[in-house]
Amino acid sequence: MRASNLTLMTDLYELTMMQGYFKNPTDQIVVFDAFYRTNPYDGGYAVSCGLSQVIEYIKGLHFSYEDIEYLRSLGIFEEAFLEYLAGFHFTGSIWAVPEGTVMFPREPMLKVAAPIMEAQLIEPAILNMLNHQSMIATKAARVCMAADGDGVMEFGLRRAQGPDAGIYGARAAVIGGCVGTSNVITGQMFDVPVLGTHAHSWIMSFPSEYEAFKAYAKQYPNNCTLLVDTYDVLDSGVPNAIRVFKEMREAGIPLTKYGIRIDSGDLAYLSKRAYKMLAEAGFEDAIICASSDLDEYLIMSLKAQGAKINQWGVGTALITSKGWSAFGGVYKLAAIKNKGDKEFTPKIKLSENSEKITNPGDKKIYRIYDRESGKIRADLICLQEETFSEDEDILLFDPIETWKKTKLKAGTFTLREVLVPVFENGTCVYNDTASTMELRSRCMREIDTLWDETKRFENPHQVYRIKAALLEELS
Amino acid sequence: MRASNLTLMTDLYELTMMQGYFKNPTDQIVVFDAFYRTNPYDGGYAVSCGLSQVIEYIKGLHFSYEDIEYLRSLGIFEEAFLEYLAGFHFTGSIWAVPEGTVMFPREPMLKVAAPIMEAQLIEPAILNMLNHQSMIATKAARVCMAADGDGVMEFGLRRAQGPDAGIYGARAAVIGGCVGTSNVITGQMFDVPVLGTHAHSWIMSFPSEYEAFKAYAKQYPNNCTLLVDTYDVLDSGVPNAIRVFKEMREAGIPLTKYGIRIDSGDLAYLSKRAYKMLAEAGFEDAIICASSDLDEYLIMSLKAQGAKINQWGVGTALITSKGWSAFGGVYKLAAIKNKGDKEFTPKIKLSENSEKITNPGDKKIYRIYDRESGKIRADLICLQEETFSEDEDILLFDPIETWKKTKLKAGTFTLREVLVPVFENGTCVYNDTASTMELRSRCMREIDTLWDETKRFENPHQVYRIKAALLEELS
Repeated sequence: MRASNLTLMTDLYELTMMQGYFKNPTDQIVVFDAFYRTNPYDGGYAVSCGLSQVIEYIKGLHFSYEDIEYLRSLGIFEEAFLEYLAGFHFTGSIWAVPEGTVMFPREPMLKVAAPIMEAQLIEPAILNMLNHQSMIATKAARVCMAADGDGVMEFGLRRAQGPDAGIYGARAAVIGGCVGTSNVITGQMFDVPVLGTHAHSWIMSFPSEYEAFKAYAKQYPNNCTLLVDTYDVLDSGVPNAIRVFKEMREAGIPLTKYGIRIDSGDLAYLSKRAYKMLAEAGFEDAIICASSDLDEYLIMSLKAQGAKINQWGVGTALITSKGWSAFGGVYKLAAIKNKGDKEFTPKIKLSENSEKITNPGDKKIYRIYDRESGKIRADLICLQEETFSEDEDILLFDPIETWKKTKLKAGTFTLREVLVPVFENGTCVYNDTASTMELRSRCMREIDTLWDETKRFENPHQVYRIKAALLEELS
Repeated sequence: MRASNLTLMTDLYELTMMQGYFKNPTDQIVVFDAFYRTNPYDGGYAVSCGLSQVIEYIKGLHFSYEDIEYLRSLGIFEEAFLEYLAGFHFTGSIWAVPEGTVMFPREPMLKVAAPIMEAQLIEPAILNMLNHQSMIATKAARVCMAADGDGVMEFGLRRAQGPDAGIYGARAAVIGGCVGTSNVITGQMFDVPVLGTHAHSWIMSFPSEYEAFKAYAKQYPNNCTLLVDTYDVLDSGVPNAIRVFKEMREAGIPLTKYGIRIDSGDLAYLSKRAYKMLAEAGFEDAIICASSDLDEYLIMSLKAQGAKINQWGVGTALITSKGWSAFGGVYKLAAIKNKGDKEFTPKIKLSENSEKITNPGDKKIYRIYDRESGKIRADLICLQEETFSEDEDILLFDPIETWKKTKLKAGTFTLREVLVPVFENGTCVYNDTASTMELRSRCMREIDTLWDETKRFENPHQVYRIKAALLEELS
């Protein structure tokens, strides 16, 4: 019953509009921008993710016989239009920010140039996939920043919003920085590490906690993290774990990857006490893993309290992006070109809500890096046909407080185009073969291009955005 | 690339524990309860949803050749265990609360009795599906209650947490009370109404708003809701809509399902002004639809302000359950029985967090209804082998403040078992053939069994829960 063909995963109004365009045919090519308005959690950046699934979706687009039959049954579509749909395939062009790249609000993360019927159909699926995975990757990057080099494991499958949220959410979490996931199918599909040991039920199904630990250690001596909070962490769990570790040591079993997991209670207090007990027994290199409704703020707080935790299992708050459950990406018409026109005509949507006013034009983005540090100085938004060079000075200014300016001297910065071609006239031209773990490495390098001021959680510095037209005016 | 076989959609620790049990074989049958601890949004109830997908998942459980190969590649599973998995099928029994039923915290919503290896494997998928859909159905019920009889349309696909969250979330939203969804594939898969007209891009792709409205009205005279906020609601959108409606009236086109949609701005003010303009032009029966980051609280507020809105499109806040993004259902070992034992031995998990202590025993639930009003008086949690009768008095008491008691006289109440058999020894025995729209009707009847005091958003009355053992003690 799981749909393998997602072509009908669109909003009805896309299809009613398509039929409207079919009946009022034009030669127009339109440009739609997918962008978001605010960084998740009011942070300083987001991480792009989900493009691989968008590419698969676009490649697989077709209306099956059953799809056409279903649409016919709705009684609102004419036969000529249904016939058009039966032969539908995507003929447009798409540019996008590669996965694992840091990105900023109100800049295109994906751009479609296509006949309007095609551009409309794909709107909901594109947004769905980019919104979901970019949000989770961003959340993961934040959690991993709080963990400050400790391993963060994605543990949220059971709390995810449906199977895909668990499967692709875990993928995005790994790209955002997690060392692996508990979700086995994500491991299988995307070749990422799968992690985990045992649950409270394992302990409860044995006559005693000690026997449960002993049986587990016997089976998995090389990966022996024992869950110590089923009955009482300090009076039962940790002493029983130490007893088992001692027996392993006495039996000559090398203790390489071993330790305890605490899943409830006061993690700061318990971890410090547990560490003391472990260290006194000669197990100071034991892993102390915590998992209990954690997020980036709790992890930072635990670190500030001196908690002796060096591995983190993060579930609900990461996989559902608790507190910021929607990325909020939108897809807006930015420009229109009639057949034969050379350039696009910019289109703007006004709104009573000023933040809903769109940024018109067929645009591209140059990212400006400080040549010495490699950090991002600004993003320059210009029209597709404009070009900028590293050999000329650039004047930066704050897009709101425009009197705040900095001139970048030629030679002090490098330029990179952020949007790369993905489809050209219907053909996929994206040849990024990076594995999911390679995307994770890319994401770590990308995050390293942010200043610490942009990465902080409270009132982060917002990366400058600059429009070329304004630039000319001011320089 | 979408997985059709979800057998590996489980946490690694389920498989490592399974291998542990495989190496330490027992004849034990265990009981696991899936339950949740707090009603979403601190409300008074939740709506059960997702069981259909759980049933499909259980029926489809099998480890494919590729699954076994993948598990072998992890280097932690022995050949004998992999061979066992290759022949795996579910042989246990499952009881569950039927979809669309109201339910309360700390009572089983699903119960598994099975060999522990089988019961463990299915934990994450069961929780994932029930957690997601029950949360969305509950949210939808709340939004629909706020809309107070107006139609609520599910519009959230683009903001959902991945494809399944959009597809099954829309299903759950309809079961919880929405009149339909914009998501076409959900309409196809579950035979529910699909809804929608056009977007801002339709308006922007025509030379003028008037021409865009006119073209739309020509194509869809029977379902003509015009989006009026692309440029200016009161100065442009509504006057242009009225102009088109007048032309339709003059042309003798019957105006049956027609009106306007406002997607931004001050919805209270704009809807009142728009209504006045429409009414003055003789279109007082026009639909006035609002959609702009709505949730149950905003809808109640708009109603309180006298907004002239009679149809609601709800997106992000519903499909992601904004502000309560995880249902929080857990799956806990409750009892164990060795082969040959007649009764189960209750099992309890203690915890430093008292709300994480589990409710032991092989349990069932009787729901007690007031015979006259049909409203729920209490849920009675008892052991599976206990029986209660409508012919004997029952003493109710608050589970926390146990001195608050009410005696229900025989004849004043009816009893219904809430958990129904779904699988018996591996065979599906659930023969509920209700369509999704029938589940929606059931849900509406179920919500009608709640007192208004339980349905309210602020500080709702919590339905009494009573345990049989305590009942005997007190009566």
